[in-house]
This record gives sequence, structure tokens and C-alpha cells, in this order.
Amino acid sequence: MNLREYITTFIDPDFRGKIPFRHTSKRYTKHQIITDFEQIEASIYFLRQGIVEVNINSESEIKILDFFFAHSFFCSYSSLLTHTPSDVQIVAVTECIVEAIRFEDLKKAYHHSLIANQLGRIETERLYLRKVKREKQLLTQSSEAQYLTLLAEHPEVIAQLPVNKISRYLGIRPESLSRIRKRIIS
Amino acid sequence: MNLREYITTFIDPDFRGKIPFRHTSKRYTKHQIITDFEQIEASIYFLRQGIVEVNINSESEIKILDFFFAHSFFCSYSSLLTHTPSDVQIVAVTECIVEAIRFEDLKKAYHHSLIANQLGRIETERLYLRKVKREKQLLTQSSEAQYLTLLAEHPEVIAQLPVNKISRYLGIRPESLSRIRKRIIS
Repeated sequence: MNLREYITTFIDPDFRGKIPFRHTSKRYTKHQIITDFEQIEASIYFLRQGIVEVNINSESEIKILDFFFAHSFFCSYSSLLTHTPSDVQIVAVTECIVEAIRFEDLKKAYHHSLIANQLGRIETERLYLRKVKREKQLLTQSSEAQYLTLLAEHPEVIAQLPVNKISRYLGIRPESLSRIRKRIIS
Repeated sequence: MNLREYITTFIDPDFRGKIPFRHTSKRYTKHQIITDFEQIEASIYFLRQGIVEVNINSESEIKILDFFFAHSFFCSYSSLLTHTPSDVQIVAVTECIVEAIRFEDLKKAYHHSLIANQLGRIETERLYLRKVKREKQLLTQSSEAQYLTLLAEHPEVIAQLPVNKISRYLGIRPESLSRIRKRIIS
């Protein structure tokens, strides 16, 4: 799915015009850093293909805060909006193909374009809900329940992510994840 | 500041048109519940005057999650967007005057109105940043630092909020807050 298809599928089925901001295809190799800690985020990315992870430095340990999968937008959004150094790092987990949109270009479009604002609004609503959901998950769900949620929503995770990444996302050791997996299968 | 003044101050200084959705003035008395737990949120509120608190039920204890002050938008936003029962309760801390906007009316405006989408996008960006900031504060700041942040950003809090509300927001006992206050003054 490319950006235009995404817009006609999720934002406005009647959209026929020109996309009102520049977007550039980029390819990242597996393990390549897309946005680093302390970098000021300047772009928003539409993930056409692949998986990225969002890492955070918590008590001198790198934890996985989130994963993004194909056909979604990602970036270090707080850094982008406030023009401050990023406290997260975004890394390609698999080879990734993205459409990069410079925030400068998007901001210009925000002045006059209905579709740019609809896209920005809807994607920000999604990020907001994601944040609320993840927060609630962390506060209330056991690792096993979190794993089941991830499995239900993104079965491709199991096929494409190594065990140590999933366990770092769940905040548990790989051996504990193995035990959870065995329990679920049996 | 009314809704139109808010829009020309914070969204688009050139906006001259008609506000593209209905908004109705309402008055809430002190302690009145605006949105209750388990209610499905159907409106967004622009707070013209007063202070509201957002409460959450955490381990069978009501905690204050957030305060909103005059000239900001509030509602149980997850409930509104996902049409699910609210897990927060919104209460008038002081007498409040609001402009209530039915989400049904706003959604219609989102189909065609640039200013409605700009407003929706920018307010959602603010809520997102607020969520990120509060989360970071909870994870990293001491109660004293959180109190100082609240004091610096909203000095009116001290004048208008009782000690027990501030301490419930900070997650500490009123006596601990008194000690913090004494330490700061001395």
C-alpha cells in the first residue's frame, strides 16, 4: 500500500487530488537507525514495508517501547512537534521501505490543505489512543496478557521478530517468554 | 476568551468565517460531574472559565490524573474517539463556564472544514504532548519537582485549589505536601 492508497482507504475515499506535500521513498537496512536518541526529529515516515521498533533509555537499559508495522505512520513525534532532542530511538527491525515527509513541507500544507489536516488529525488521534492503550496495558496487564494482545493484533510478529525483541517489549527475560509460549500452546 | 478568540489567537489569525459547528454555553456548579465513569463521552468542551479535574479509579482509590484550566479543551477523549465507556471522570473544581460541542456536529464539520480539522489536529497534538509529559513526570520527577512544575505553569492553582486536591494529584498525603511547601518557602 502506498501513501495515496492509504489516504483513499483510511482518510477520504473521494480524494483524487495531488498529495499536497513532498514524500520521498527511502530504504533502510535491517538494524539501521532511522532516528537516534538526542536527534531533533525533522520527518514523518509512512512505513510501506517492514517493522520498526521504538526504544527508550530507562535506567541505563534500552527498553522497547513500541513496534510499528507496515501501513502506519511513525516518527519521534514529541521531538518533531516541540523541536527538542528525541528521547526515543527508532530502528529498522527488518529491511524497511518508507515514504519520508519533511515536517517543514507538511507544515506548509497544514496552512491551506484540508486533506493534510485530516491526515494529521486522524494520525495524531491514533497515536494518542495508542499511547493511552499502551499505558493502560503496562499498568494493568500481565506479561502473558500483553503477549496475547500482541499476538492477536499482529500475528506477523511471531514470524518476523526474534524472541529477545518480544521479551524486551514485554519487559521480561527470554526464558520467561518461552515459558509463556509453552503455557499457551499446551 | 471565547471560542472565536481562541481560534484567532491559537489556530488561524486570519479566520473570519462562521465557526463550522454548533457550540452551546453551559454552566456547571462547583463539584458537579461533567462526564462520569462509564459514560460514553459525546461532547468536547471549551473551558471559558474555571478549573476541572480528571479522576481515575486506580486500585479502588480515586486519583487525580490531570487538571484543565481556562482557555483549553477537555473531554474524556479516548471514550469520545472510540465510543467506549469512559475510564475517567471529569468534575468541576470551581464553578465553570464551558462551550459544549457535540462530537456528531464536529465530525460533520471534519468532512469539509479546514478550520475544524486544524483545530482538531492542533488540540489532539496538545493532548498527545500533555500525555507524554505527564507520563515522563510520573516516571522521573519527585513529588516536590512535580509540585514546582505545577506552580510554575499554573500559579493560580495555589490560589484556587484546596491542599487535598493538589496532594491527590501528586499522589502524596496532605501532610507531605505541607512539608514540601515549607521547604520551598524557607
